[in-house]
Amino acid sequence: MDKIILLILDGLGDWPIGQFGGKTPLEAANTPNLDELAKRGICGVMDTVDIGIKPGSDAAHLSILGYNPYTEYTGRGPFEAAGIGMEVLPGDVCLRVNMATVDEELAVKDRRVGRIDSTEEYARLLDGTEIDGVKFMLKPGTAYRMGMVMRGKGLSSKISDSDPKLVDQRVKKIKPLDDSIGAKQTAKVLNQFLELAYAKLKDLPSNLQRINEGKLPANYLLTRGAGIYPDMVPFQEKWKMKAVCVAGAGLYKGIARVLGMDVIDAPGATGTATSDLNAKMRKVIEVLEDYDFVFVHIKGADSLGEDGNCTGKKEFIEKIDEAVRPLLDLQDTVIAITADHSTPCESLTHSADDVPLVIWAPRGRTDEVSQFGETACFRGRLGRIQGRHLMPILVDKAGRAQKFGA
Amino acid sequence: MDKIILLILDGLGDWPIGQFGGKTPLEAANTPNLDELAKRGICGVMDTVDIGIKPGSDAAHLSILGYNPYTEYTGRGPFEAAGIGMEVLPGDVCLRVNMATVDEELAVKDRRVGRIDSTEEYARLLDGTEIDGVKFMLKPGTAYRMGMVMRGKGLSSKISDSDPKLVDQRVKKIKPLDDSIGAKQTAKVLNQFLELAYAKLKDLPSNLQRINEGKLPANYLLTRGAGIYPDMVPFQEKWKMKAVCVAGAGLYKGIARVLGMDVIDAPGATGTATSDLNAKMRKVIEVLEDYDFVFVHIKGADSLGEDGNCTGKKEFIEKIDEAVRPLLDLQDTVIAITADHSTPCESLTHSADDVPLVIWAPRGRTDEVSQFGETACFRGRLGRIQGRHLMPILVDKAGRAQKFGA
Repeated sequence: MDKIILLILDGLGDWPIGQFGGKTPLEAANTPNLDELAKRGICGVMDTVDIGIKPGSDAAHLSILGYNPYTEYTGRGPFEAAGIGMEVLPGDVCLRVNMATVDEELAVKDRRVGRIDSTEEYARLLDGTEIDGVKFMLKPGTAYRMGMVMRGKGLSSKISDSDPKLVDQRVKKIKPLDDSIGAKQTAKVLNQFLELAYAKLKDLPSNLQRINEGKLPANYLLTRGAGIYPDMVPFQEKWKMKAVCVAGAGLYKGIARVLGMDVIDAPGATGTATSDLNAKMRKVIEVLEDYDFVFVHIKGADSLGEDGNCTGKKEFIEKIDEAVRPLLDLQDTVIAITADHSTPCESLTHSADDVPLVIWAPRGRTDEVSQFGETACFRGRLGRIQGRHLMPILVDKAGRAQKFGA
Repeated sequence: MDKIILLILDGLGDWPIGQFGGKTPLEAANTPNLDELAKRGICGVMDTVDIGIKPGSDAAHLSILGYNPYTEYTGRGPFEAAGIGMEVLPGDVCLRVNMATVDEELAVKDRRVGRIDSTEEYARLLDGTEIDGVKFMLKPGTAYRMGMVMRGKGLSSKISDSDPKLVDQRVKKIKPLDDSIGAKQTAKVLNQFLELAYAKLKDLPSNLQRINEGKLPANYLLTRGAGIYPDMVPFQEKWKMKAVCVAGAGLYKGIARVLGMDVIDAPGATGTATSDLNAKMRKVIEVLEDYDFVFVHIKGADSLGEDGNCTGKKEFIEKIDEAVRPLLDLQDTVIAITADHSTPCESLTHSADDVPLVIWAPRGRTDEVSQFGETACFRGRLGRIQGRHLMPILVDKAGRAQKFGA
């Protein structure tokens, strides 16, 4: 039986770009190592949730890891909270928070305070707040991200987001999404908390100083992804493999924790475009000794796509290519490289476009694809598959599949 | 309306093989007649159960014949028992048995007694045994196979296998797979029977003589696939066609019988690699007079793949090619040739790899594929389909489809 490395390059998929002569950032990038894997292996394209579905990273990852997002996804909050090591109890409502900048009319000026480095000060300011018997716990995530947990009797996760998703739009009032008393009460208390937080943040000395320095103030909490901690079959039980996650960004560590994987921090792996990918890959190869399955997540390409920075995305892909070089020397290991979704630089957000996939296994079929790219992979022997197919394929290629029937 | 011949070449799919210059046994074989069908017809590849799923032959056949294996498959035993003409009553637990060789520590030395020709003597020895109110009925199948039926009050099929699946591993104790009294009782009685059978077999004069002659003794029953006779919609009711099965191996006759098809024995069709395929095909063409649908099964390629005999598999495929020659002269007949799963010679077992498919119909679309092979068919106009799609396609191509809607 072989081991498996699954490398997810967040937001990798893209569209043809004029300045790249109609190539995508991946196709325009110089990627000799990824291309070598394509030559040795078998390629295809994948719709991580389903054809035409524009997936969030969380739902896409669940699907890729073999969990049905339609029945098992309860919202992003729990993964975000677990990812930054928050202690969560049954009945807690978990939310994802972006630290953001709003103007005096509460119109969003920047959804990430210009990708501020840390939210530690703001989380500390607000953590432990109690309103109407509900306790709010906040903890900083990576960069502009925070996790928030609401604890109290009869709360519901059926509430809307305060995040309008677009700049120059006013922040949204939280609304109950069903008629339950719990949803109404949760929305009401959360609205009160967000008002209180804005009042405290806008006059915070450090924010006044940021304004003086011409920086954006960190003055509003954009909440989204409310969810109740989900009860999922552990990955190890489902796939009969001891699994570990090597990731920088909190969401992916959180997904791994919720699925019962071990989570290992690679030094310098920050979940941003400046992440030390070489150190991350060294860690991957190191932990391969002790695990059957290594889930590796690299975030940068997604953020650069969301920023519309196609040159940055291309260059980051070239950094990835360098970092995966040592994987080519591994033996008795199935290596799969793909993305959770496309984040076309021209769209500044996720799209429903399928993503390229390469699988290199010690044995089995290959194809004639010699380049790792959106168009080349479509000609690959795997054809067009869905996210739910990936784990069964990898388990089969690793010689670990159970026969269905006899 | 046309008639339909569906020819399943068991375990046909394979991987590229070095000694064949990177071709599969099917691609390396000289197959002018199969290639002619590919030229005249339309090709594709098929995942018989689902992408990434490594199917057993039974689950794969159900799926190909239009039955959902996830909801309708109860275990291999009932098909095996029906296939060799055992009389089965409601509540009977049916099991598949391999006659095997174990050493004195009950470690398996050969799971098929070197593919012994007949189990008649051993079945006769053990048939009719009663333990604790449970009657054991045994009947020889082809080669090393037997069918076993347990009859008694309150039995359950939720029991594990004695077959460890690998050589040099000790035979397994039967365990109940749920907490029911029936499962516990069934496991207990079956364990007692297997001990008794071993005691009788190991001292059997014919086995002592086999040992003296340097042959493997037939001294243990490896059981698997316990199931209760399933209640399925008859094939004729489902597809509105009078159907017949022409097969050598018991499992496939059993599946056909359970689905209510007639079963016809072709002279010399033994379900092994030495089967008289020409006689089988003559029988197929003969029975086409009286039936709308002929399901033909050829086993040999699977067994040769499991033995790692890639040259034998290639040569057997050439025998198949010769045998299908007369099909090219048929009129008003849709001909489909495919496999139930891949059995790569390098893996010695089933794999999840898709299988090639060719359909030749008197009318309708064709494509530019001119060779029947794993890679060539992938370029065909049918693309990559699933087993559940095949029957509807064939029924449509035969001009027999009901409109869905109006």
